[in-house]
Amino acid sequence: MNPVLSAPASSAAATAWTGRYQAVRQQTEALCAPLLPEDTVVQPMLDVSPPKWHLAHTTWFFETFLLKEYGAGYQVFHPDYAYLFNSYYNSLGSRVNRADRGTISRPPLADVLAYRAYVDQAMAGLLAQAEELPAAFAEVMELGLQHEQQHQELLATDIKYILSTSPLAPAYLSEPSKGKSEELTERQGIADYNVQQLPSTLPEARFLPVPGGIYRIGFQERGFCFDNELAVHEVLLAPFELQNRLVTNGEYLAFMEAGGYRDFRYWMGEGWDLAQREGWEAPLYWVKQPEGWFRFTHHGLQPLSLAAPVTHISFYEADAYANWAGARLPTEQEWEAAARYFGAGTRGGTWVESQRFDPQPLPASADPASCHQLLGDCWEWTYSAYHAYPGYQRAAGALGEYNGKFMVNQLVLRGGSCATPESHARISYRNFFHADKRWQFTGIRLARSVNR
Amino acid sequence: MNPVLSAPASSAAATAWTGRYQAVRQQTEALCAPLLPEDTVVQPMLDVSPPKWHLAHTTWFFETFLLKEYGAGYQVFHPDYAYLFNSYYNSLGSRVNRADRGTISRPPLADVLAYRAYVDQAMAGLLAQAEELPAAFAEVMELGLQHEQQHQELLATDIKYILSTSPLAPAYLSEPSKGKSEELTERQGIADYNVQQLPSTLPEARFLPVPGGIYRIGFQERGFCFDNELAVHEVLLAPFELQNRLVTNGEYLAFMEAGGYRDFRYWMGEGWDLAQREGWEAPLYWVKQPEGWFRFTHHGLQPLSLAAPVTHISFYEADAYANWAGARLPTEQEWEAAARYFGAGTRGGTWVESQRFDPQPLPASADPASCHQLLGDCWEWTYSAYHAYPGYQRAAGALGEYNGKFMVNQLVLRGGSCATPESHARISYRNFFHADKRWQFTGIRLARSVNR
Amino acid sequence: MNPVLSAPASSAAATAWTGRYQAVRQQTEALCAPLLPEDTVVQPMLDVSPPKWHLAHTTWFFETFLLKEYGAGYQVFHPDYAYLFNSYYNSLGSRVNRADRGTISRPPLADVLAYRAYVDQAMAGLLAQAEELPAAFAEVMELGLQHEQQHQELLATDIKYILSTSPLAPAYLSEPSKGKSEELTERQGIADYNVQQLPSTLPEARFLPVPGGIYRIGFQERGFCFDNELAVHEVLLAPFELQNRLVTNGEYLAFMEAGGYRDFRYWMGEGWDLAQREGWEAPLYWVKQPEGWFRFTHHGLQPLSLAAPVTHISFYEADAYANWAGARLPTEQEWEAAARYFGAGTRGGTWVESQRFDPQPLPASADPASCHQLLGDCWEWTYSAYHAYPGYQRAAGALGEYNGKFMVNQLVLRGGSCATPESHARISYRNFFHADKRWQFTGIRLARSVNR
Amino acid sequence: MNPVLSAPASSAAATAWTGRYQAVRQQTEALCAPLLPEDTVVQPMLDVSPPKWHLAHTTWFFETFLLKEYGAGYQVFHPDYAYLFNSYYNSLGSRVNRADRGTISRPPLADVLAYRAYVDQAMAGLLAQAEELPAAFAEVMELGLQHEQQHQELLATDIKYILSTSPLAPAYLSEPSKGKSEELTERQGIADYNVQQLPSTLPEARFLPVPGGIYRIGFQERGFCFDNELAVHEVLLAPFELQNRLVTNGEYLAFMEAGGYRDFRYWMGEGWDLAQREGWEAPLYWVKQPEGWFRFTHHGLQPLSLAAPVTHISFYEADAYANWAGARLPTEQEWEAAARYFGAGTRGGTWVESQRFDPQPLPASADPASCHQLLGDCWEWTYSAYHAYPGYQRAAGALGEYNGKFMVNQLVLRGGSCATPESHARISYRNFFHADKRWQFTGIRLARSVNR
Repeated sequence: MNPVLSAPASSAAATAWTGRYQAVRQQTEALCAPLLPEDTVVQPMLDVSPPKWHLAHTTWFFETFLLKEYGAGYQVFHPDYAYLFNSYYNSLGSRVNRADRGTISRPPLADVLAYRAYVDQAMAGLLAQAEELPAAFAEVMELGLQHEQQHQELLATDIKYILSTSPLAPAYLSEPSKGKSEELTERQGIADYNVQQLPSTLPEARFLPVPGGIYRIGFQERGFCFDNELAVHEVLLAPFELQNRLVTNGEYLAFMEAGGYRDFRYWMGEGWDLAQREGWEAPLYWVKQPEGWFRFTHHGLQPLSLAAPVTHISFYEADAYANWAGARLPTEQEWEAAARYFGAGTRGGTWVESQRFDPQPLPASADPASCHQLLGDCWEWTYSAYHAYPGYQRAAGALGEYNGKFMVNQLVLRGGSCATPESHARISYRNFFHADKRWQFTGIRLARSVNR
Repeated sequence: MNPVLSAPASSAAATAWTGRYQAVRQQTEALCAPLLPEDTVVQPMLDVSPPKWHLAHTTWFFETFLLKEYGAGYQVFHPDYAYLFNSYYNSLGSRVNRADRGTISRPPLADVLAYRAYVDQAMAGLLAQAEELPAAFAEVMELGLQHEQQHQELLATDIKYILSTSPLAPAYLSEPSKGKSEELTERQGIADYNVQQLPSTLPEARFLPVPGGIYRIGFQERGFCFDNELAVHEVLLAPFELQNRLVTNGEYLAFMEAGGYRDFRYWMGEGWDLAQREGWEAPLYWVKQPEGWFRFTHHGLQPLSLAAPVTHISFYEADAYANWAGARLPTEQEWEAAARYFGAGTRGGTWVESQRFDPQPLPASADPASCHQLLGDCWEWTYSAYHAYPGYQRAAGALGEYNGKFMVNQLVLRGGSCATPESHARISYRNFFHADKRWQFTGIRLARSVNR
Repeated sequence: MNPVLSAPASSAAATAWTGRYQAVRQQTEALCAPLLPEDTVVQPMLDVSPPKWHLAHTTWFFETFLLKEYGAGYQVFHPDYAYLFNSYYNSLGSRVNRADRGTISRPPLADVLAYRAYVDQAMAGLLAQAEELPAAFAEVMELGLQHEQQHQELLATDIKYILSTSPLAPAYLSEPSKGKSEELTERQGIADYNVQQLPSTLPEARFLPVPGGIYRIGFQERGFCFDNELAVHEVLLAPFELQNRLVTNGEYLAFMEAGGYRDFRYWMGEGWDLAQREGWEAPLYWVKQPEGWFRFTHHGLQPLSLAAPVTHISFYEADAYANWAGARLPTEQEWEAAARYFGAGTRGGTWVESQRFDPQPLPASADPASCHQLLGDCWEWTYSAYHAYPGYQRAAGALGEYNGKFMVNQLVLRGGSCATPESHARISYRNFFHADKRWQFTGIRLARSVNR
Repeated sequence: MNPVLSAPASSAAATAWTGRYQAVRQQTEALCAPLLPEDTVVQPMLDVSPPKWHLAHTTWFFETFLLKEYGAGYQVFHPDYAYLFNSYYNSLGSRVNRADRGTISRPPLADVLAYRAYVDQAMAGLLAQAEELPAAFAEVMELGLQHEQQHQELLATDIKYILSTSPLAPAYLSEPSKGKSEELTERQGIADYNVQQLPSTLPEARFLPVPGGIYRIGFQERGFCFDNELAVHEVLLAPFELQNRLVTNGEYLAFMEAGGYRDFRYWMGEGWDLAQREGWEAPLYWVKQPEGWFRFTHHGLQPLSLAAPVTHISFYEADAYANWAGARLPTEQEWEAAARYFGAGTRGGTWVESQRFDPQPLPASADPASCHQLLGDCWEWTYSAYHAYPGYQRAAGALGEYNGKFMVNQLVLRGGSCATPESHARISYRNFFHADKRWQFTGIRLARSVNR
């Protein structure tokens, strides 16, 4: 981990840390507020962690890497929590198997919240003297905040999965805890979801040309990034075209209705086999009802918005769709080069809307000659394996396990989703999942080679 | 289901039902009182059901078989609960797969308790007019109470398993909810567990002769029994001997130390393979510590009492022990014949002690010429397959699935355990589990053929 | 193993051993004659062993228990064969896992046949001096022959399964090795199979009464038996009725057409779950074709004979059929008592016909007041667990593993099948399989309790 | 499939096809000559196909894509073979599941060889008129030959695996079929393997610099290539260094002895988990004996040559080794660029030696300033996912399934192995396997970034 930092260096710095720390920590708890204690224990599949575990694990991160390191005289909250809430750091000793996180009925949610309060109090003390701490402190402090924000996105998607597999499929943001949800709504500006307001028209899909040439890839901005974005390097790209917006549910439905799930020619072999074995006929969370297609969302079962971006698809489905559409997925280098070329600097004002945890349609008024929805709508599958950039070095110590050991067998996704904290939606960010995963907010952007 | 009943037939009857109903229902809730909501959702293995599920399923039984049948105008509490809390009745439609009971995060415990209260209230109304209801009502009413008591035993053993697999292995009857546990203790007479008081001497083990001849097998007493105890029939038994007490932890330890787990000659082939594959070296819940053997109990980890009956063993282990000891397990017919011969009518005063959920040593003062611990200590594995008695008939309708469809591939256990409600500890009671199961309070009583 | 023997005791004895030995050994090889080397290596499921393995294992039995024990100066054929061809004797050291028998490509069939010849030659020498050997020799010698005959039946059923799973499903007794098969036919009197000659009428099915009382169970005849038939003991049976013939394919088809495979009420719970999971809709080997039902047989795919006994069914199916038919399966005690009562002493002249490896219809002329098909048609599932008889003792040493360690979790079958060597079709013989097995020639005989 | 061809266009052409066809076909059969029929049926793991299947599948390829297409009046040898021997072409209908290839006991080897002869005869007729056939014929004809050569390599590695899992672990090239093997030896120049002649010294390992810049990647030579090598394109590479030879067994042993298999820090997370689960402690086929390390080879168990290249390692092990050695694996672009830069045009004279199916040590006399062992020793794992080159297009029809559908989740290997037919050992060749595969002749070449 070699994050690039402009570290705060004064009592203003301490204040800044304190404010950010509190904001991040409160946001995590706000995400869990609509849950009942029972919801926070369940692990319906290996990829999904119980929310209680997320709450504790992010806390363990601060305790382990900051308080035990820099907090003079700090006493751990509970000697067993390191065993319970270490995620995957072999450097830090044995731990509960990932597959067994659903057995952690104790400590109860109340104890985990007490753990959070205890660590928050100790952190408040530590941050008060942040200016006296070595530079390394700031690096890890920044990482702790970023790490917790990553878990906020996982919380959002794991909660969705947990509720969807609960036989009653309760909604996250309405019943049965209406009161709490309304509170959250007001506090965070989550308006009531209204599918009737979806636009009936969309800007036409258009392929926008990107010139060939040498592009610099990797984090080139100011502020924080993860180590996997570092090692800026140049790549040579042939000219190509990128579509101006994400593929919509309506377009994906056309693929389905054209028999896309029944025609092996569009599919990678392993994807085809998996789709047959699992009986895939639509994206995850889609449910066919007599009156049409619905999707399970954080707001319960909702009618499908044809104009909204398709999401909850695997790489295999994204790739098959692209083949059917006569296009392909971009590489991560193409995506990043294009994003810079089109000036997709920020997600802008759309993010709060997306906080509904449901990617929204592009407004009908959007200019089809511009490139839209690059940041903060859906994670866009690229056709690039998640490998180390040339020159990448794993950090020493436990934090060297943060990213490096995952750099094989997965694919890169770019752009951030409607569940991604805003400060994580940046051009150089590299998210990564296996080709079969569908529980994240994943989507499709088409690319095309230019025939020369 | 053809239970033998002496059904109440007046307003006294109604009162009797009401009192028994309340007592049974309260006992179930008292069992769950030391649990936190998070404990009640977890399903760590297929055999174990979440406590919340037990609480709801026993309620569903009354709702389905009594209120919907006899409660004029009764409205079900929630239309989906029949889907969630049906256990295995194919007659009653689709249901959550047994393996997926751990996904039922909602309804929360509070809703399940509200469900219980709602049904209890409706039942109170129904029971008030019990004398006007047809005879069939009393049969099913009795079954509902017996059924809930069966689940009380499962609750006790499932809770033990859940807490044991929780990585912190919390105690059921002390921390972390000391307050509640003390309350429970006072209410139910559960004295503080004191291993120091274990007797250091035991009545010697002795084989007691039982004469050969024709014995009547099956329920021959007054009151309730399950349909699998009916169809009383005669069997011809050769003379045999039964040991006067259960095998103790100390005796079992001798088997272990003599290499019992490493010598295939004592084992059934499938048991041996399983023991190797799973690495069995001791009963379930035994833990070796530097200072000696401990067991996980409802009171947390406790030192092994050498004088207490060995428990939490599979049939394979019971059988291997018997072979090693130069004896055998009794058949269920031998067990029942001997129990009647020795006059083991009731569990007597020992039951409250056993409510500690930990089988207790036989007092040193017990007469070695009598047969002890027949009822209410450990379920005793017999060498009899759980098959229908000759002349057994499955009942018509859904309740025909209660017992009959399980009558193959399992073995009969007799005698009741320290977790068995007292009214279920009777001579003719047939419990049954697969040969590999260890999470119940199962034990060993030796028998011997008489060489003629 | 305590076989009851009238052991030969002179040079006539030696001659008798030699003749029987040669006959048994040749029969095993004749069974494999229609096979190609490639057929003899395959293990399509755990229960099935490659024919080459059977050929070698039966030889290993003589080598291990007789030649190494009694053959002065005997040199084993190959030092590794004990590792390869030990079946399940833990006493005799490590061995190839049962699941891995299909990896034994070497030694090739030719080497295994050479192994047989080598052992046969050594056995010839040993048998020439049989009268000088201790009595124990005769016991094990007898067992070796009986053991090889048991494997002859397994060979017949394993070969059937192997050929049925070979994608081309070749016939055993015709193509592609017509020449060899004709040879075998002439040598063994196997006439060409002719389904047109099946009778169109059958004696009516009738329940024949058997009086209640005390019956002696176990081997009471002269000659050899296995140790699991010993410990003759008395049982008390209530009066019952047994059907006069086996259930036919036509009767079973009526069950199927009445929805027997779709109605859980007839099924044991575990059987129902298995049938659903595996999609069972008919017995093993049945294939529905446009022109009707066919069965895969040793003669390839053949039209279903409605009059022939149904076979290749699991216990679950046998039990479900009996429930549907308003009857039940007999216990093994009932079966044996009835067989003695009805005087079913021998299979008689029907066996050679049955050597076609296909159970034949009962002749239309058979007297419906007699009990038919008790020996040598199909193994009849009983509703008795395969447990030790009272007083059963495992033998010391490796041969103690022959039967005893399987005495749990399986069910007893009685009567022998069309693939059973004639000397194994006896009243007291106890075959045993798990409730789900279907690859043996298993069938159904109905019983009924008498309502008193 | 758009192979680049310089197709023969006259009767000389026909002659050329005929000669090449015969040579390729005979080589396949020569590879199988040391096998017994029994060896050719076995499938010990999913990746490995039975040799009989390879013999038939390569023949099916010619029958399906050439004879049925261009052979006027051609009658297929057997109507079911298309079902049996189609590998993975969904376009061509249903087929035996890959996992079930071990059940194909019939047709026997003799029939498969007859199938080969039948198709060879028909092909001879077709090739005699090759000049009259359309250009597309030549493309597919070339592909058929290349395809069969690919299967020759798989045969070599599958046979090795089959023999290694046969409990007796017989040698391919000596016993038990010495006669045949000697024949083969003379015919193919396979000298007797002599480990004593291994060199004790090796040229020192040295990193050779490769300048940065724009390189053209893909097939740029004359002759045949696969479609996955096409779409020549430019890449920009930073300067880097490549090691002058492969990593040796001795060097790998140092990694093992330094605890490489016990230190997670060197490993990809999924590789570490797999290695723990499977208990990996050395490359596949390594066996520790009292006298030191041995490897199972085509010549049976042989002492480890410290100077020979390490082989039979997964990507995970290659990558862990590189991390331990302070280096990394090259990308496939770096590998190809370096191979061109160093002029590694051909495998040269070393190939016949390598036909021993055992990678040989680099001669002590080799110049350490040159780059060695690039072609024909071991497949070198690269750190590049096997993805389509930019501009790659799947062919239409069944042959479009040849390469394209595998282009995800696997890694590229470069350079060819000692089992690779010479015409397949070329600079642009892209082999691909999953990261966990070890049964191919896979090895390690180190690379290093240049710190600027």
